Amino acid sequence: MLSGKTQLIAHIGYPTETFKAPMIYNPWFDAQGIDARVVPMGVKAEDFVTALPLIMRMSNVRGALITMPHKVTALGLLAEVSPTAQIAGACNAVRAREDGALVGDMFDGAGFVRGVERKGRSLRGARVLVNGAGGVGSAIAASIAAAGAVELMLHDARPESAVALGERLHQHYPRLKVRTGSNDPAGWDVIVNATPLGMKPGDPLPFDVARIAAGTFVGEVVMKTEHTPLLQAALAKGCPVQVGTDMLFEQIPAYLEFFGYGTTTADVLRGTARLSY
Amino acid sequence: MLSGKTQLIAHIGYPTETFKAPMIYNPWFDAQGIDARVVPMGVKAEDFVTALPLIMRMSNVRGALITMPHKVTALGLLAEVSPTAQIAGACNAVRAREDGALVGDMFDGAGFVRGVERKGRSLRGARVLVNGAGGVGSAIAASIAAAGAVELMLHDARPESAVALGERLHQHYPRLKVRTGSNDPAGWDVIVNATPLGMKPGDPLPFDVARIAAGTFVGEVVMKTEHTPLLQAALAKGCPVQVGTDMLFEQIPAYLEFFGYGTTTADVLRGTARLSY
Repeated sequence: MLSGKTQLIAHIGYPTETFKAPMIYNPWFDAQGIDARVVPMGVKAEDFVTALPLIMRMSNVRGALITMPHKVTALGLLAEVSPTAQIAGACNAVRAREDGALVGDMFDGAGFVRGVERKGRSLRGARVLVNGAGGVGSAIAASIAAAGAVELMLHDARPESAVALGERLHQHYPRLKVRTGSNDPAGWDVIVNATPLGMKPGDPLPFDVARIAAGTFVGEVVMKTEHTPLLQAALAKGCPVQVGTDMLFEQIPAYLEFFGYGTTTADVLRGTARLSY
Repeated sequence: MLSGKTQLIAHIGYPTETFKAPMIYNPWFDAQGIDARVVPMGVKAEDFVTALPLIMRMSNVRGALITMPHKVTALGLLAEVSPTAQIAGACNAVRAREDGALVGDMFDGAGFVRGVERKGRSLRGARVLVNGAGGVGSAIAASIAAAGAVELMLHDARPESAVALGERLHQHYPRLKVRTGSNDPAGWDVIVNATPLGMKPGDPLPFDVARIAAGTFVGEVVMKTEHTPLLQAALAKGCPVQVGTDMLFEQIPAYLEFFGYGTTTADVLRGTARLSY
């Protein structure tokens, strides 16, 4: 039961109505006998810069999950940022070091990669197309690079976003082949939709599905429905796919380790979280 | 279950470990099917002035319970303050008006008075001694005056606190007879311990119990144990008493109305809250 001794993970974003993390983490904390709670805090953009340090100084707050619209702003408020978060240009997890300084990381990409590899598709040596170079697309590209991909094609409706992401990737992974500008899905081992296309009825598809080969692994970040139009088309072709929520669930152990809840307990989580979600 | 749609009542104070409100209100919200949660937020003194407005602007926060060490500081941050809170010089409940301006009230005293009157002892025409002119003592004195007492004796280890409280009472209740300086319990209808004496083993008693008459009603604010040494002595003399937590439970309906949860539901609360506490 929530009490003054409960450790809070502040879930900071706006609006809060669609937050999923409380329903994922809290039943698991209860099942494990851990006195902790993910608590939504609806902080608007204009308040975030003041609010984040204040929330992190609350004596019963252990860390923060950062979500829309603060993932990019958060970076500028941290003393220490992981390479993945640097490349992503965004951060979705913050904790305080012992000296009080704030540390940030980004686990969207780790969740995506972990999901793909759990499905038996290694990213080592892979050639990957990522459509969408915003926060989540950048995080996925960074984690795909870290997982050993040899070539990345980056596409964004704003070409300069793809180019900037390519430059950040090149700085950290000089041997990775990075190109930008095409969203043609033909010839890639893995293609990823990291755009919002698929959120709204009538959205155009993020790829020309006629040109997706049957062996291509198709990953999705949109979690409005389990099988978005893109995934439906991919499944119809016999492609292996990853649904949007997999990224979310697969990053849970990484978050829990980051907040200090330990590898072992984190590894127990997957089954429980799926059940309670 | 706590979600992004849940309305939060921020319980702001430091330290949070001894907070009781979450265990009182949250089971009741659940039982009533109200999607709301009291959430402890451990805000330290140096952060409070910045934190209160920020917390109140969170989109999922409906109001705040203010506790130690912020009850006095809070007053200076509000656009509108109830007369009771003005006399108390302290505030323990804050909500935002529709225009966003913050409104504060103080319910410690209302809880104390409601508890006494529920025990069949009217305060109309009563002569009352209040020992302790800090936040809680001032709130109790204000509510006792509002309930129709004719005479108040105020005592504090810092005499100037009692004098200042007396002046604030006199401004709002010019016909009330107010004196300060004595904590002799002889001759009063009701005596109240509003000091911290009784929190720690070995504390001196707040009154000379030898001089308490059997008919005197003895009220206590210390809630460390149900029967403090003062109450044990009073019970041994056959005095009617009120324990510290009664003030807490009796103010719950007032809080709930203040936050807009309605009189009817609030009236249902008492039984449930006692059970779940």
